[in-house]
Amino acid sequence: MNQLPCTAVPRLKIDDFDPKELSSPAIIEGFDIGKCLQWTPDYLRNTMGDKHVTVHKSDHPVLKFQPRNFTYETFQFDEFLTHAFDENCKSFFYLRSLAKAARDDVANFAVDYPELKADVEFPPLFEEDQFFSSVFRVSSADVELWTHFDTMDNYLLHIYGQKRVFLFPPKDVSNLYVIDDKPRVFELDNVSVESFPNLKNCSAWKCVLAPGDILFIPAFWFHNVKALNFSVSVNVFWKSLPSELYDAKDVYGNSALLPGQRALQSLDSTLNKLKGLPAPIKDFYIRCLILKLEALITQ
Amino acid sequence: MNQLPCTAVPRLKIDDFDPKELSSPAIIEGFDIGKCLQWTPDYLRNTMGDKHVTVHKSDHPVLKFQPRNFTYETFQFDEFLTHAFDENCKSFFYLRSLAKAARDDVANFAVDYPELKADVEFPPLFEEDQFFSSVFRVSSADVELWTHFDTMDNYLLHIYGQKRVFLFPPKDVSNLYVIDDKPRVFELDNVSVESFPNLKNCSAWKCVLAPGDILFIPAFWFHNVKALNFSVSVNVFWKSLPSELYDAKDVYGNSALLPGQRALQSLDSTLNKLKGLPAPIKDFYIRCLILKLEALITQ
Repeated sequence: MNQLPCTAVPRLKIDDFDPKELSSPAIIEGFDIGKCLQWTPDYLRNTMGDKHVTVHKSDHPVLKFQPRNFTYETFQFDEFLTHAFDENCKSFFYLRSLAKAARDDVANFAVDYPELKADVEFPPLFEEDQFFSSVFRVSSADVELWTHFDTMDNYLLHIYGQKRVFLFPPKDVSNLYVIDDKPRVFELDNVSVESFPNLKNCSAWKCVLAPGDILFIPAFWFHNVKALNFSVSVNVFWKSLPSELYDAKDVYGNSALLPGQRALQSLDSTLNKLKGLPAPIKDFYIRCLILKLEALITQ
Repeated sequence: MNQLPCTAVPRLKIDDFDPKELSSPAIIEGFDIGKCLQWTPDYLRNTMGDKHVTVHKSDHPVLKFQPRNFTYETFQFDEFLTHAFDENCKSFFYLRSLAKAARDDVANFAVDYPELKADVEFPPLFEEDQFFSSVFRVSSADVELWTHFDTMDNYLLHIYGQKRVFLFPPKDVSNLYVIDDKPRVFELDNVSVESFPNLKNCSAWKCVLAPGDILFIPAFWFHNVKALNFSVSVNVFWKSLPSELYDAKDVYGNSALLPGQRALQSLDSTLNKLKGLPAPIKDFYIRCLILKLEALITQ
């Protein structure tokens, strides 16, 4: 009971579909992502040697938030890369690139990594004015990033190494033991379905990415990405919904949409109405609220 | 799989407990409910012959609301009683007494049935100013009333015949296939747990009442009552919570408490915040609202 049954992510030729119609994960083939396919660790080290990067560092390959099992540390790029590429290194490293003014600006690969910009060709999957951010990702072998979702459509342009990706549709928010937006399921390659029985209700999708693969990850699809070996990718986020729905303060592409934030806040005032009731009766009405919401679920 | 596992409702001697401490169903023994124990159908017929009563009438013993399988019809009491007592009658009858001004006033057995008032002694389970209503109930054999809950504590003072009662704690609102306040499970003596699998999660209680038994039914406990034969009872509702929590328009003792009504209404404005989102994203946030509520469930 440790292998999740999965749908294989389909592979689509870039000329065979309309990007606007894409609503579930797909690996897009037939687009040349450029000279980056010839990148080597040495080339990256030499090109960006003394650039400073802040990266995730952990003693454990499975990065988690609750409790957080990693630190953020700043290295020279060549030092970071030496560690990340070394399969005998006892620590695990993960670079998720940030803008220079990381709290205010979104990551933009072309701006943040001008040395590498010309090497990467981006497929035309959205209109220019929908662009949100592009993120450079470099990972030690075996690093698994916590399962999460973003509120923007994005694609992962995979450049070096291999990555295993699990994906779950938005409705599986009910099945992934989510607390505070974050699923509590990890190590999905060998997960205990006995410990997390709702996983049986999930509709998991799976793929392994090779260099040159472009994985479309729709907004609100949970994804769990594991670098099977030292890996390099760039991913690109864009706004597929009207701009005013997104949180203007969001620099990661994963803050709740404003209507969602407002609904979750409004639920607090709904709950406030029950203040002062004895606990079992409050519990009863919370269950009634749940029933009312469950009746509205459509998927 | 057709017999619900049940806890037997305990029997308590009236002198052995403090009524204020009672929070789960109990059959109260050792209190003499008076001369009503000598009532016979003939006595009731003779005493109230030409009084008019509006009763539930159905071709089916299991009374349901969705769709409603009964009508309300007005009879002379003696005619009603003749039908209700006749086990060969093809129709089923159920009297739930109402005040003369049924829409505005609560039922009050002493006022509505002055002819019978002196025959019934009521146990002192609450303060006089907590009294809400008292209801005379006369039923054909085999009549099962739809499973429901009241928002007031009440006791069923059982006088004639036998009644089988299932009870479920408030938390089982999540397991009883409730739509619009009403469970969708019927015929609980032989219910299909395959069709209603959540019943397996219920904490059912059960008892059979004989004349002289007084069943305490706590507020918000679901109950399903079946007359095993021609039956007569009186039940008494009282307000165990502060008076301002109850809906002043409620004449049945089962309208949602005002905080509950306000919370359920407020949920509509919470849901309004999600208007305009694409269906799958709206569905996603509804599921997030559910998760937030589920985290608050304490029982």
